[in-house]
Amino acid sequence: MTTPPPLPATGAWLPGDPVGERRFFTFATDRRFALDSGRTLSDVVVAYETWGTLDADGRNAVLLCHAWTGDSHAAGPAGRGHLEPGWWNAMVGPGKPIDTNRYFVVCANVLGGCQGSTGPSSPHPDDGLPYGSRFPVVTIRDMVRAQARLADHLGVFQWLAVVGGSMGGMQALEWAVMYPRRVRSLVAVATCMQATAQQIAWGAIGRRAIRLDPRWRGGDYYDAAPGDGPSEGLAIARMVAQVTFRSDNVFTDRFGRELADRGDTGDTLGMWQQFEVERYLGHHGNKLARRFDANSYLAIGKAMDLHDIARGRGSIERAIARIQVPTMAVGIWSDMLYPSYQQRQLHEAVAANDVQSEYVEIDSPHGHDAFLINGDQIAGPIERFIGDVSKTS
Amino acid sequence: MTTPPPLPATGAWLPGDPVGERRFFTFATDRRFALDSGRTLSDVVVAYETWGTLDADGRNAVLLCHAWTGDSHAAGPAGRGHLEPGWWNAMVGPGKPIDTNRYFVVCANVLGGCQGSTGPSSPHPDDGLPYGSRFPVVTIRDMVRAQARLADHLGVFQWLAVVGGSMGGMQALEWAVMYPRRVRSLVAVATCMQATAQQIAWGAIGRRAIRLDPRWRGGDYYDAAPGDGPSEGLAIARMVAQVTFRSDNVFTDRFGRELADRGDTGDTLGMWQQFEVERYLGHHGNKLARRFDANSYLAIGKAMDLHDIARGRGSIERAIARIQVPTMAVGIWSDMLYPSYQQRQLHEAVAANDVQSEYVEIDSPHGHDAFLINGDQIAGPIERFIGDVSKTS
Repeated sequence: MTTPPPLPATGAWLPGDPVGERRFFTFATDRRFALDSGRTLSDVVVAYETWGTLDADGRNAVLLCHAWTGDSHAAGPAGRGHLEPGWWNAMVGPGKPIDTNRYFVVCANVLGGCQGSTGPSSPHPDDGLPYGSRFPVVTIRDMVRAQARLADHLGVFQWLAVVGGSMGGMQALEWAVMYPRRVRSLVAVATCMQATAQQIAWGAIGRRAIRLDPRWRGGDYYDAAPGDGPSEGLAIARMVAQVTFRSDNVFTDRFGRELADRGDTGDTLGMWQQFEVERYLGHHGNKLARRFDANSYLAIGKAMDLHDIARGRGSIERAIARIQVPTMAVGIWSDMLYPSYQQRQLHEAVAANDVQSEYVEIDSPHGHDAFLINGDQIAGPIERFIGDVSKTS
Repeated sequence: MTTPPPLPATGAWLPGDPVGERRFFTFATDRRFALDSGRTLSDVVVAYETWGTLDADGRNAVLLCHAWTGDSHAAGPAGRGHLEPGWWNAMVGPGKPIDTNRYFVVCANVLGGCQGSTGPSSPHPDDGLPYGSRFPVVTIRDMVRAQARLADHLGVFQWLAVVGGSMGGMQALEWAVMYPRRVRSLVAVATCMQATAQQIAWGAIGRRAIRLDPRWRGGDYYDAAPGDGPSEGLAIARMVAQVTFRSDNVFTDRFGRELADRGDTGDTLGMWQQFEVERYLGHHGNKLARRFDANSYLAIGKAMDLHDIARGRGSIERAIARIQVPTMAVGIWSDMLYPSYQQRQLHEAVAANDVQSEYVEIDSPHGHDAFLINGDQIAGPIERFIGDVSKTS
């Protein structure tokens, strides 16, 4: 039996680590990049990957937007630089629904992330030390503004489609609202127009758990030794999320009341007879701590709480009125985190303006994660939807 | 503006604190009390309250079983010894649905609790110091066995009804299964026959947050100064529970995206623009830490995870077959923690044996807590149900 290596102090990708398929674009080296919070950043790096080739007319570009703990590696195998295979491998590639023989596909690590884009683990330009607690609050709109700079850099004036699930869907929505002339269609999966109080509550609990971890050190833990980072707080935060990503039914079917460890005595508070579901959640929490940075988890979670397409635009209706392109909203009936009524609301809000809109429901008991687990159900609709848009002028 | 006093190291009621309406029964002073875990306890104290008078024939006794952070104070005002008014004040009292002019009503703090019954904060008989980490795992059945000793002491051979919601409903069920001759009817509200994987998951997350709190000190924090107890871990655990006790709809209606604190800068990770729902959850978490002991929270939470009427009895069906008395199962359609299908299952399992059973649903958007918030909806049915049973021989 091998002992797992100690958890890193931070699960961030750091310069010097294997680059894998990542490429890097740096901007705001002269003029500072203004954030919604009123703060600014300079020397902003966006890590991204591309698949396929941009047409001469630049009209076959598809932007994929990743979710909370995702990164730019949407497609491709695991390997050096990529601990995990692409998060939408089944959907993206040659001959696949989002066909890289046909489309130029781009995916960028979000601002605030930890897989190469500027985030809390990145060096602060002033002193080269990690931002840590100095990293500003960022919003979904800030993430999208950074992606717009990348689009300029790549020569993409207009995306054929912007596609994303969960937090990726928030970005897709903001793209269509912020830059209506730069988006020809959007696909928003298992997401919402504004974070609800319950969604904020889940996020806030996870954040408070990370901050409780004494190894978080107020956010400045980057010089800690391996195993001495805030992995326990991050694991707890992930456990909260993991339950909301799944469903009661599936947990019952998969784990029921199976025991992972009977324990030999009844004398340690609460540890006698650990259930399999506890072991599973603990495993996933620890696994995330190995590949993800706790501060990025905080920063991105906060960005999701702040997500509200109505903010500064008067109302949801006025924001949605800016969307004048074909829209596909995808829901999952068993999703307890982003219940399907939220995607139906999006569809209805767009359709109310006589704009082409459709609602597709994934029939799966797997909850929120069905957008990854049962991607096959939306493969056909997304392939057809983007294909149809590509035929329009 | 007054500063709140520092949180106690433990929210437990301790000898020397005002007694209020509590009375105490001590047993196992000679022979030790055996627990499901294989461990034993001695000098077990049960704190309880009673209302009304036991009839000469002893047949008008109703047992109320409290939920996770409840205690014996089911009815009556707040005051010295009772930080809060009775948890079912609207339901229990003279002329109320559970009429104390008519019935002898008993409510006991559960084993493992912190309001006078033996629990982790109680003195260990060997050295008079708090049990702390030495406190054994207890189960719902252990709680019920302790209540049975109290019933003997009070001269109640048979309860007219055993009534409880949430964890109280688990006790009511176990009463009917463990002591079928001692129960004439049961009312089980917003509860289940066995804890599901999702319920265990929520509990496990809260426990892990308490254990992460460095002020938990492995469970031995009772000599800590005020303000130096594991209140932050307990608050986080409570926040998880609090979200599952309510509902998406009600959170949206009540809090929406209202801000509690805009914050003056965007420079502290995740603290810019705190939402009202975060403030609310934090307030309730802190409030619980003031009145409840973190170790009791762990112990009782674990007891709920271990709740399974089938354990050691072959199957749910064989356990339920022991119930041969009128049963009322109450569900709440918006309950995400103990979804109403679980109470319908209970009703159907009892009815399958040709035993009188009814299912009543509370029509409320308030989620699990509706069993307290909308108690008015079940006041009539419970009054009628117990009244009918009281007329039988």
